[in-house]
Amino acid sequence: MHYFDWTATSPMGQKALEVYSDIATRYIGNPSSTHPLGIQAKECLENQRRDVASMLGTRPEYIYFTSGGTEADSIVLSSLLGSPSPGEIITTGIEHAAVLEWKKALENHGWKFTALRCPGGYLDPLTLKEALNDKVRMVAFMKVNNVTGTILDTKALVKVVRDYEKQSGRKIHIHCDAVQALGKIPFHPEEEDFDSAAFSAHKFCGPRGVGILYCRNKAIGALSRGGGQEKGLRPGTENLAGICAMTAELKPALENLKPDYDKVLAFRRKIQETILESGYTLISPPDKSEKEFSPYIINICAKPIPSEVFLRVMADKGFCLSSGSACSSNSRGKAESVLAAMNIPSSDRMSSIRISLSYLNLDEEVDLLCKALREASGQLGIRK
Amino acid sequence: MHYFDWTATSPMGQKALEVYSDIATRYIGNPSSTHPLGIQAKECLENQRRDVASMLGTRPEYIYFTSGGTEADSIVLSSLLGSPSPGEIITTGIEHAAVLEWKKALENHGWKFTALRCPGGYLDPLTLKEALNDKVRMVAFMKVNNVTGTILDTKALVKVVRDYEKQSGRKIHIHCDAVQALGKIPFHPEEEDFDSAAFSAHKFCGPRGVGILYCRNKAIGALSRGGGQEKGLRPGTENLAGICAMTAELKPALENLKPDYDKVLAFRRKIQETILESGYTLISPPDKSEKEFSPYIINICAKPIPSEVFLRVMADKGFCLSSGSACSSNSRGKAESVLAAMNIPSSDRMSSIRISLSYLNLDEEVDLLCKALREASGQLGIRK
Repeated sequence: MHYFDWTATSPMGQKALEVYSDIATRYIGNPSSTHPLGIQAKECLENQRRDVASMLGTRPEYIYFTSGGTEADSIVLSSLLGSPSPGEIITTGIEHAAVLEWKKALENHGWKFTALRCPGGYLDPLTLKEALNDKVRMVAFMKVNNVTGTILDTKALVKVVRDYEKQSGRKIHIHCDAVQALGKIPFHPEEEDFDSAAFSAHKFCGPRGVGILYCRNKAIGALSRGGGQEKGLRPGTENLAGICAMTAELKPALENLKPDYDKVLAFRRKIQETILESGYTLISPPDKSEKEFSPYIINICAKPIPSEVFLRVMADKGFCLSSGSACSSNSRGKAESVLAAMNIPSSDRMSSIRISLSYLNLDEEVDLLCKALREASGQLGIRK
Repeated sequence: MHYFDWTATSPMGQKALEVYSDIATRYIGNPSSTHPLGIQAKECLENQRRDVASMLGTRPEYIYFTSGGTEADSIVLSSLLGSPSPGEIITTGIEHAAVLEWKKALENHGWKFTALRCPGGYLDPLTLKEALNDKVRMVAFMKVNNVTGTILDTKALVKVVRDYEKQSGRKIHIHCDAVQALGKIPFHPEEEDFDSAAFSAHKFCGPRGVGILYCRNKAIGALSRGGGQEKGLRPGTENLAGICAMTAELKPALENLKPDYDKVLAFRRKIQETILESGYTLISPPDKSEKEFSPYIINICAKPIPSEVFLRVMADKGFCLSSGSACSSNSRGKAESVLAAMNIPSSDRMSSIRISLSYLNLDEEVDLLCKALREASGQLGIRK
């Protein structure tokens, strides 16, 4: 099978596997234990925290290791439930389920949950500005959308919130789901002035079950309760081998950001050309500059064929593609609601296909994919 | 270093490491993806669920994979926060922090949090019976205490609650933290009539960051929000390699339960003899039958030496021991509060030392430990 579903997950890298085994074998103590093997494990853990902080351009005390991106998002969103009086959270309709699925729980506790529409996959800073009001305590938006790859203008969006803060004299927490950004495009949470950001290891060839929460707001509370690990924000024995395996992959991902990006951009251009020539429609913005979307994610429309039929045909040809976010047992439904919030017409949404790429894809694979897309178009009568 | 802190964590087994690498390499798809590599991963995941269910004597639909024991406990306890009207939870003062630390959050939401005292490390069924009342919605007690190894009479305790249910006509959820029981003593959550139970992989040589929640009560809600993984109870991409590595160690742990137990019991008897001969006091119950405590955990008192001094002396001699639960940056404080709830005098608590064992300890190591304990007693003037 040729794998083009890297947005859903990536295989664990060879480096990560080696580091995982090595650390699990050599560091057997619990970092919370006070004996020499515990102290050794604790030192290793804090070294990882320093390394990650340095790679993200922030301080070690703002870095918390979690069990994944979903947990990192959830820690931030759930902490609103601990607030003595409910207010409003503003987010976008194109967020991952780890953010959007908090709607019900927050509303049950009296919070207003506002999910702004994002025509074409972008949140207009003016839309955000108009939505801000005195009740708003948190604003959450993603950096790179996981269904279409659109890159939000976070600089402008953060500025709108910070300007409002100055004017109103009230602090607003800004959270960013950067799961699809880290290791793909430049991202520095502190430079961008985020109060928190969520990351997931298995999106950049790290292990599953490991993530990072960057958080500089001490008012954010924990999700679980337990021993005091991660300064109480993420209790539970630390997954040291997993954390080390993650940093082992994050380091080269950041060092090679530009060449990897360029390689994937070349793949994307080739695939995009094929798509436009073969009757498909590009759902990811074709009329924007390449800085405004991630080359790692292409969303196309295979009208009039429903997504699941098209995916089956492509699977038979040996290609793993997706209909949207894999983080759901009903993934098409989730991707569809994201596309709806982008004002994509219903008929296009039903035939939406996500192709996601990696620098690990081979040139020949991309050529084979283009060939298969052309063939499928003819066989299935794809048309604009 | 000779490792005698297995209650805090165990090194990942060779089998677990091999399985981890193998699965991470061979199953690259996201179990939520609908393409062939996703389906393959999903099948593997569901096979693990069936295996674990069969090993625990329950049904696959009651098994949820979590990021650890803390998360498994927290899912159950936190779900009370979603209840429309607050009630009361009854637990014990000797629970792990993953249960006890919910006190504040629950009380903030109007819940009464009752932690019953457990003299000598046991919860008297009569004490529980007297505490039950119409407001109680949940009862939570551990199977094996992590500080002293006492085994609670869960059969009698569950019966008290079920009898009260019949009499009052109100359903009460019974949760069991069985983290120190699984793989050490027989434990079948359904046979014992628990509604939920929490387990942790790294206590039986599985990987860190993986746990199990057994739960047959559909009213229990999730902690995180996200994609619909684990029927929504534990969203986030499943850590397939970690889960497979866990079951690879759980299987032999359960198959060899009796011989491993017998081996550790022999170690314990030898250490216990040394302790009683060398001026130490046994904090774990010396006057109970061996069925009432786990041989894997011994808690002794090294009066008049403070725990941390004694631990340093033993570390210098090459032994990793503990002063209590490692799951805390302030572990002595936590262990102390557990010992206080057991009615252990303050002067004894300050000198409490936990020695925890594994069938993987060598005979020679145990002999060396006994020798070192005798030496330390003479050097430090240990006396009853």
